[in-house]
Amino acid sequence: MAVCEILSVGTEILLGDILNTNCKYLSTELANMGISVLHHVTVGDNDERLAEAFNTAMSRSDIVIATGGLGPTPDDITRDVCCREFGFDLQFNEEVADNIRCFFKTKGYNMPENNLRQAYVPVGGTVFMNDNGTAPGLGMKKDGKCLVIMPGPPYEMAPMFKKSVEPFLEEYRTCTIVSHEIRTMGIGESAMAQVAGELLDSENPTVAPYCKMGESLLRVSARAENAEKANEMAMPIINELKARLGDYVYGIDVKGVEESVVALLKEKKLTVATAESCTAGLVAKRITDVAGASAVFHCGFVTYANEIKEKMLGVKHETLEKYGAVSAETAREMAEGARLKSGADIGISVTGFAGPDADEEGKAPGLIYLGLSAENYLTAEKLETGRNDRDFNRFVSASALLNLLRRYIEKEI
Amino acid sequence: MAVCEILSVGTEILLGDILNTNCKYLSTELANMGISVLHHVTVGDNDERLAEAFNTAMSRSDIVIATGGLGPTPDDITRDVCCREFGFDLQFNEEVADNIRCFFKTKGYNMPENNLRQAYVPVGGTVFMNDNGTAPGLGMKKDGKCLVIMPGPPYEMAPMFKKSVEPFLEEYRTCTIVSHEIRTMGIGESAMAQVAGELLDSENPTVAPYCKMGESLLRVSARAENAEKANEMAMPIINELKARLGDYVYGIDVKGVEESVVALLKEKKLTVATAESCTAGLVAKRITDVAGASAVFHCGFVTYANEIKEKMLGVKHETLEKYGAVSAETAREMAEGARLKSGADIGISVTGFAGPDADEEGKAPGLIYLGLSAENYLTAEKLETGRNDRDFNRFVSASALLNLLRRYIEKEI
Repeated sequence: MAVCEILSVGTEILLGDILNTNCKYLSTELANMGISVLHHVTVGDNDERLAEAFNTAMSRSDIVIATGGLGPTPDDITRDVCCREFGFDLQFNEEVADNIRCFFKTKGYNMPENNLRQAYVPVGGTVFMNDNGTAPGLGMKKDGKCLVIMPGPPYEMAPMFKKSVEPFLEEYRTCTIVSHEIRTMGIGESAMAQVAGELLDSENPTVAPYCKMGESLLRVSARAENAEKANEMAMPIINELKARLGDYVYGIDVKGVEESVVALLKEKKLTVATAESCTAGLVAKRITDVAGASAVFHCGFVTYANEIKEKMLGVKHETLEKYGAVSAETAREMAEGARLKSGADIGISVTGFAGPDADEEGKAPGLIYLGLSAENYLTAEKLETGRNDRDFNRFVSASALLNLLRRYIEKEI
Repeated sequence: MAVCEILSVGTEILLGDILNTNCKYLSTELANMGISVLHHVTVGDNDERLAEAFNTAMSRSDIVIATGGLGPTPDDITRDVCCREFGFDLQFNEEVADNIRCFFKTKGYNMPENNLRQAYVPVGGTVFMNDNGTAPGLGMKKDGKCLVIMPGPPYEMAPMFKKSVEPFLEEYRTCTIVSHEIRTMGIGESAMAQVAGELLDSENPTVAPYCKMGESLLRVSARAENAEKANEMAMPIINELKARLGDYVYGIDVKGVEESVVALLKEKKLTVATAESCTAGLVAKRITDVAGASAVFHCGFVTYANEIKEKMLGVKHETLEKYGAVSAETAREMAEGARLKSGADIGISVTGFAGPDADEEGKAPGLIYLGLSAENYLTAEKLETGRNDRDFNRFVSASALLNLLRRYIEKEI
């Protein structure tokens, strides 16, 4: 298996000004090609330390991928140092220069003369055109070793990798790894792992549990000679896990529960209206994060104050007096109000204490009530996150409300 | 100046499963102590490669900070390998063991026996108790070199660094760097840099421009023997930049414009209601991200469909027919409606095309109208982001609306 090393160049990374997301992106992509990454190294824009890091990397790895330090200013030295150490001369390239000129022209800017520095490329190397910036990527192969240099900005680097670098590295591919995520809600990571049982010991596909922001997921990764075969291997395991986890599974390879919800609403031709207190717009925002949500989402109410819950949603004064704003009763009336006031098929609601402020009713942060109202259907659910973390509580209660909606549609409609 | 190297340990980082945020956090903290970070290195949970990376790091740096690989399972080898290579024996420590037992007891879990592996600590080293997990941090000093080992999870590592490791490294501190951020909106990065002019060349404090998500900011960093003196040096520069940038500045060291807006509303004892179309709750969500926002935010309307704009906000049917939903006229009526229907002092609104869908009116994604209504005041503003990026357009138009509100309060009230 080919060994690769990722060399990040940039003093701003060492100063903590920039989070190195390129390393993670490249590591995932290389793992999926069956190329082994054994080192990540970051150095600043310094000739001596970069040369040392480059030579160390080349001595122990088959492939070195360097990112960053390809700008037009004199402190950008990655190309010069790496090509010099690898033994490649540089030459001015008219096609690259035209590309750079064209980039500025399209944007309507004047090109600073020093940008043409970026048009020098290694003799005998491969140039990867940059669709989102001016510095081209560069590839060189020599004596069984391979060097790839790419610009640092992630929105330039990632498309360049997919379009040009992945094909350039094709000969090193040992397999194709395809991963799918089974996303669940309402079951903890360890309980989920218990249900997955002996499947977690499977070697190919592998099954790995993760948790994040109140959700648990299983990643199923299959390794084969191509994507089609890898998918064929993954499918039976995914289906078995789905069968075992049942209702907890809200989607496969979706970005979040909102994606599943919007798809379901579209399929069933239903509309939804939201009434939010503690999440204050986050549920509506997440539904409409999904492009095309306008077909199923018509309106939302953000009712923070009690008087507004009465005025906008018709929550009864006595309900608020007797049970408080954070109660199953209020959640139900909010959901009912959202549905009736908007004319949507379903109304959903959330009211709770996100924290960190102590509340006047003496209830703990993380106590949330969710409501759902449809014709001939009305329910409320209680959620206790046990955490005094405003962002977490808001996100998790929005997720739980969307999941309540998903389960309602799947079961009742 | 002391040189430090950050050594991250974990195969999951090399596989791309985890984003290495520890490196960024530690780099920032060390820079602020005047300690120079020249290398970041990541290796997997492998004895040979970890030992090699450790010895290389120790040979070229005064301080090595290793994170990750301190778990209770046999593949967690960071402590054993680093202590062995640095020449420190391990010994079972009762106090640490009690801490671990206590951690499990508090959580109500049974402690797996292998967790006591984490109670072995270097003889002659310093133990940093872990307030958020079981693996303690470890510090060793020998022959003018210093080794720090910390657990990998960021929520364990960062508090441990602040509480114990920063004091442990105090002798290496050469200065204190204090940074402040001047946050602006409505002016591009290069125009802002032009206004900052010769101040960008200042060496101490330094002034550096950044841009992110439609905003520009200037970071002023002063270096002195302590924080008080650093702040004294930074203040005149900050005041000068504020004077030059005037109305573009929406806050200093705030998390976002919502923080400035909530503070202003509180100060002036004003309430606001929102009417959102394309942002669909994001403005309300961002206002209420600020703890204590309930004093100034009573309600919000998310009006996605045209009929809902009429029904909930009283936007005139003829206005929508004649000018379309994405127009200054509609924005004004939405803001007016939000204010009148809710009884708030100010109503703000946003309507636009976030993309990526082509719209039925033939207008380009990124065209947004903002509205603001108060007693005897009504305005609308047009915003063109020029981008077909849904998330970006939604975030930037929410920011611009909050900024419109800020400018209104500062100027008119």
